[in-house]
Amino acid sequence: VINADRVWQRLMRLAEIGALPGGGVDRQALSAGEIDAWRLVIGWALEAGMSAASDLAGNLFLTLPGRDRSLPPVMAGSHLDTQPTGGKFDGAFGVMAALEAAVSMAERGLVPARDLVVVAWMNEEGSRFAPGMMGSEWFAGVRDLAAIRATKDAAGIGVGDALDWLHAAFPDLAHHAAGFPVAAYLEPHIEQGPVMEQQAQVIGVVTGIQGKTTWEITITGREGHAGTLAMADRADALMAFARMAVAWQAEIGLADAAVKFTIGRLVVAPNAPSVVPNRVTLRIDLRHPDNAVLNRLGARLETIAHELAAPCGVAITRLVDAPSNEFDDALRARITAAAARHNLSSMPMLSAAGHDARHLAPLCPSAMIFIPCRGGISHAEDEWAEPAHVAAGALVVAEVLAALVTPDA
Amino acid sequence: VINADRVWQRLMRLAEIGALPGGGVDRQALSAGEIDAWRLVIGWALEAGMSAASDLAGNLFLTLPGRDRSLPPVMAGSHLDTQPTGGKFDGAFGVMAALEAAVSMAERGLVPARDLVVVAWMNEEGSRFAPGMMGSEWFAGVRDLAAIRATKDAAGIGVGDALDWLHAAFPDLAHHAAGFPVAAYLEPHIEQGPVMEQQAQVIGVVTGIQGKTTWEITITGREGHAGTLAMADRADALMAFARMAVAWQAEIGLADAAVKFTIGRLVVAPNAPSVVPNRVTLRIDLRHPDNAVLNRLGARLETIAHELAAPCGVAITRLVDAPSNEFDDALRARITAAAARHNLSSMPMLSAAGHDARHLAPLCPSAMIFIPCRGGISHAEDEWAEPAHVAAGALVVAEVLAALVTPDA
Repeated sequence: VINADRVWQRLMRLAEIGALPGGGVDRQALSAGEIDAWRLVIGWALEAGMSAASDLAGNLFLTLPGRDRSLPPVMAGSHLDTQPTGGKFDGAFGVMAALEAAVSMAERGLVPARDLVVVAWMNEEGSRFAPGMMGSEWFAGVRDLAAIRATKDAAGIGVGDALDWLHAAFPDLAHHAAGFPVAAYLEPHIEQGPVMEQQAQVIGVVTGIQGKTTWEITITGREGHAGTLAMADRADALMAFARMAVAWQAEIGLADAAVKFTIGRLVVAPNAPSVVPNRVTLRIDLRHPDNAVLNRLGARLETIAHELAAPCGVAITRLVDAPSNEFDDALRARITAAAARHNLSSMPMLSAAGHDARHLAPLCPSAMIFIPCRGGISHAEDEWAEPAHVAAGALVVAEVLAALVTPDA
Repeated sequence: VINADRVWQRLMRLAEIGALPGGGVDRQALSAGEIDAWRLVIGWALEAGMSAASDLAGNLFLTLPGRDRSLPPVMAGSHLDTQPTGGKFDGAFGVMAALEAAVSMAERGLVPARDLVVVAWMNEEGSRFAPGMMGSEWFAGVRDLAAIRATKDAAGIGVGDALDWLHAAFPDLAHHAAGFPVAAYLEPHIEQGPVMEQQAQVIGVVTGIQGKTTWEITITGREGHAGTLAMADRADALMAFARMAVAWQAEIGLADAAVKFTIGRLVVAPNAPSVVPNRVTLRIDLRHPDNAVLNRLGARLETIAHELAAPCGVAITRLVDAPSNEFDDALRARITAAAARHNLSSMPMLSAAGHDARHLAPLCPSAMIFIPCRGGISHAEDEWAEPAHVAAGALVVAEVLAALVTPDA
């Protein structure tokens, strides 16, 4: 039904764009690399008779036209951007599996009853421009375009300018001015955790996504000379950070076995060896499957920051406040059944990582299909998925999508 | 004897090069701004009939020729580079006070018995290229040119390329291929501490420089996904840093009232909001006037790093290991006497900050003259010295230098 070898070859070809020496990929949102990836993927879609379009938020849509084009399409995909030292599969697998479903359908001369849209969402990762999932949030109407465009990267480049640059690279693409109705959404992805590998399962039927809160915290002290300013007279922003971090780790990071607490980004100013730091800016990522626990730990985190800042000041901003969600029962049943038909083992599981599907779920029946990744490693250069698992995942995706777009098939 | 107004005007003119909105100066070592500052200062020297030269390490020498040019010169000065958010006086005051001594001597038609050399040392601050005092260390023969040239800044630019760029900007300048004998060295500077202001003293007669050890420490963990990697399975380099920092602060930073402990620079990798950090690189600056205490605390600092790193790894490099030193008695007596002759209050004092004079002291009789700075603040945009103190300092410098180059005057 599908060409599993083509899925694998295309994943490897995509991984050449932004390839890192250690086998990973650096293809951050709206970068030159992502533009190259778009060019490649659009070429594959056009070759199969599909059409391409974008929207004001820089999402990419590749459409296999259906018999009745007035019906809301079925949509599937993920994202093409990566972490700065990301891997070959996170995001790319979802787009390639969905594309293969459409391309193989076109090759067999099947015309779906309604449009099948393969999507690549803008800036899922949120590492160049924070927070992530800007494209799907805009599509779902939960984030304003002006706020997205105003976001700047570390070099001071705004999403607005980067979006204009992306669109200028594809002058022939039509742009949707807003999100549009979708009949169903399916997102294939690597697990990004070790559970499926440990339990020797091939297909993960995702029940929901664990809740997540992220913060930007700025600690403000006073600059001074490292050799002359008495310790008692200092307001050292980095030392205030260290006090907070140790307390957060003890009270929040180790609160229970399900909590995930990460300070992934931290910038010190003026960051000179003999100057007492006057400013530390950091990002915190806190996740928990239980919304009540997430809320309680989040409130405690903010209290600790206020309690331990003195003699420095602290400013706390919540960037993301996403509770846990649950995916569509009927779609989950379809995935389980499709896996069983092909004798592929499957298991229901919670997604520990966030995905764009979180923002589609309120709009239409949505679900996710996971495949295992080696050692549970992702967001790292040695992220790896076995070709057999990529093939199995793509097969189940194609089967579920075919049934959704052609109910009588 | 000197033109105090000219010293002040020239300090203000220099501060325009690299001026920051908050009144400070960003004129880091070997930057375009430092080249502009050289051009300005060389112009002032040539105007007074002095000559200019450089050397392989990018030090600047402005010479007022003496009657017997075969005698080792008397040298005075400081540096023209600043911290990234530095002030108008740190370094610049020393060069301008020494230059005024030479220029005013030339204006009065005085020919010194031996050369008087005004010096601006390369990279005293060590913020762009670490560690600092590269120019004076090379001059004194304690640091190798190849090692200096190989040092890179945060953007990956090496001192070697930056030095070649500097020298290319001044094709007419002769270059010394090594340090040369010096009869005496005098370095004027702002105090960078609050003691003189608190005690209402105008001239600080520096007895010595407190000992200093600096480290570069790299903590190595494992990258992972913030949403999926269990806390128990993490090797989070930033959390390891926070544990160390809190322990260092308690055991070393607060060991006694004289210790100065600073982590001024810290860089996190990959520094992405949803990735567990796998590497933290930091700089530590530890100072103490008592060499025995400095050694003991330094050893304890390294032990703590090793004890608290797990499950991360740690690599520790000592960059600078400079014990306390004592300046020349006879020179100190000359300074005290010169201040008294002009009814300027003076006090003996230890320098808490490091200076290039540390590296000249083993080569020749050396000393430093301090003037107060407001609130003891330096390495900051609001660093400030009163015009009356600048004038008083420049006057004492000129008087001491005149006596040294013209013993019969």
